Amino acid sequence: MTSSSARPRSSGASRPEDPPLASGRTPRVAAARRLTRRPRRDDERRFLAEGPQAVREALALAPDAPGAPSLLLGTPSALARYAELVASARVPVIPVDEAGMAGLSETVSPQGLVAVCSFLDVPLSVVSAAAPRLVAVLAEIQDPGNAGTVLRTADAAGAGGVVFTDGSVDPYNGKCVRASAGSLFHPPVVRGAPAEAAVASLREAGLQVLAADGYGEADLDDLADAGALGKPTAWVFGNEARGLPESLAELADARVRIPIHGRAESLNLAAAAAVCLYASARAQRRAGQ
Amino acid sequence: MTSSSARPRSSGASRPEDPPLASGRTPRVAAARRLTRRPRRDDERRFLAEGPQAVREALALAPDAPGAPSLLLGTPSALARYAELVASARVPVIPVDEAGMAGLSETVSPQGLVAVCSFLDVPLSVVSAAAPRLVAVLAEIQDPGNAGTVLRTADAAGAGGVVFTDGSVDPYNGKCVRASAGSLFHPPVVRGAPAEAAVASLREAGLQVLAADGYGEADLDDLADAGALGKPTAWVFGNEARGLPESLAELADARVRIPIHGRAESLNLAAAAAVCLYASARAQRRAGQ
Repeated sequence: MTSSSARPRSSGASRPEDPPLASGRTPRVAAARRLTRRPRRDDERRFLAEGPQAVREALALAPDAPGAPSLLLGTPSALARYAELVASARVPVIPVDEAGMAGLSETVSPQGLVAVCSFLDVPLSVVSAAAPRLVAVLAEIQDPGNAGTVLRTADAAGAGGVVFTDGSVDPYNGKCVRASAGSLFHPPVVRGAPAEAAVASLREAGLQVLAADGYGEADLDDLADAGALGKPTAWVFGNEARGLPESLAELADARVRIPIHGRAESLNLAAAAAVCLYASARAQRRAGQ
Repeated sequence: MTSSSARPRSSGASRPEDPPLASGRTPRVAAARRLTRRPRRDDERRFLAEGPQAVREALALAPDAPGAPSLLLGTPSALARYAELVASARVPVIPVDEAGMAGLSETVSPQGLVAVCSFLDVPLSVVSAAAPRLVAVLAEIQDPGNAGTVLRTADAAGAGGVVFTDGSVDPYNGKCVRASAGSLFHPPVVRGAPAEAAVASLREAGLQVLAADGYGEADLDDLADAGALGKPTAWVFGNEARGLPESLAELADARVRIPIHGRAESLNLAAAAAVCLYASARAQRRAGQ
């Protein structure tokens, strides 16, 4: 602790009064706040995991595991609400006032609890070497909420890896972490891989590459009927507005459209990813029976 | 008009220079801004459709059709960007300054184009009488972005109706309209129906009622394998955090969980709705072949 007090502060303070609350000016809170900026995260290879779900996953890690927390910060009310979770922390716990916590949050409704965690992404080669059956590749996805939701859905669908290409939002962006609802800590996550190299590497690992594309020539249901979704598959999802870059779509084994039965022009990216990833998960499990 | 000027200000000024931009104090802009509040919408039975997708759908309607616009407002840059769309308008078009337009938007990134439209929701009996094969029931969904995304997905999946129950967000909420990406104007939408009555009415119309429930006893893939998804179906989706009220879940023919193959605790509501609605759409089309 770098404040004027040199006395170690734990969540089980022995004196009767409460310790003074840290504020946004308290050095460790100010240092944490700087992690809301990507260049600082890259320098320190640490990020902020906000919310009880992410904090729970972080605290469950071994102290030297990638992603393990070094510090937990929370408002008094959040620390009380998640007392059992906080009690499991083997790292310093700092009570912070509301304004100080607001500065640590990138979300509209701060949840009052943030862990400072080490980076946990892995090189692409780690994912490819594991010969996963299902991988999601996020290519130039800009909205952190969308990216986090796709990460969460990929986790639910049993993906063996999620690749954020170099043109995509940072998986450690606070809104992405929160939208992932803890899933950032589950499947291996690759950060900043060049998109073409990622696709090539996954294909060499034996995965077919399917590009989700509203104007794709292949219909998802037709592929399912033909048994083409049972194979190990890397799904590539593109930008919310622009779709996939042509150079990347060309590398796919097929460009796949989800059938539109009504009058909507398209699906929201996260909804489309859910339909694609679950179509593969279902087909792979039926193929494996 | 509350300013000191009593002179009427119109978009069709006859002098040769560009007409002065309307501001947030211009009476028609101020009147439109009041529609960002639900009680005012209910009084006037009008709402704001923001963004080029929603505006395009509104302008395509017959002048006396439910949902038809009575006024189009836009920043000069948006009116220029969507010039072709604006030229198709058979209603007054008012150029509004940026600050005035910002007051009409409930979204983080205003798109600069808003149509004032009449309500277009229909009574539940209209949906039930049409004996639709697929309906989405939004029960106590609070987040307007989630609700609008589910509406868009239901439209894409070919739903014959979307029911917002009385405990759910207003479908005319600006964020919901925008997230629906124009789909508010497509399938029949029911607003404010009591949840139990809606479920009973849809069952009487011959639909099975499936409640999406992370802890449901029936597995979605098992239902698909058993051919149970081919029947006409009303899917009921509950609150993001609390799920479905027990009283409503009890009315369902089955509580259905999406299989979680990885370590995610659950799926995001909009992602879950996409998987369920598309599972039904696929099964119904295979059953119909």
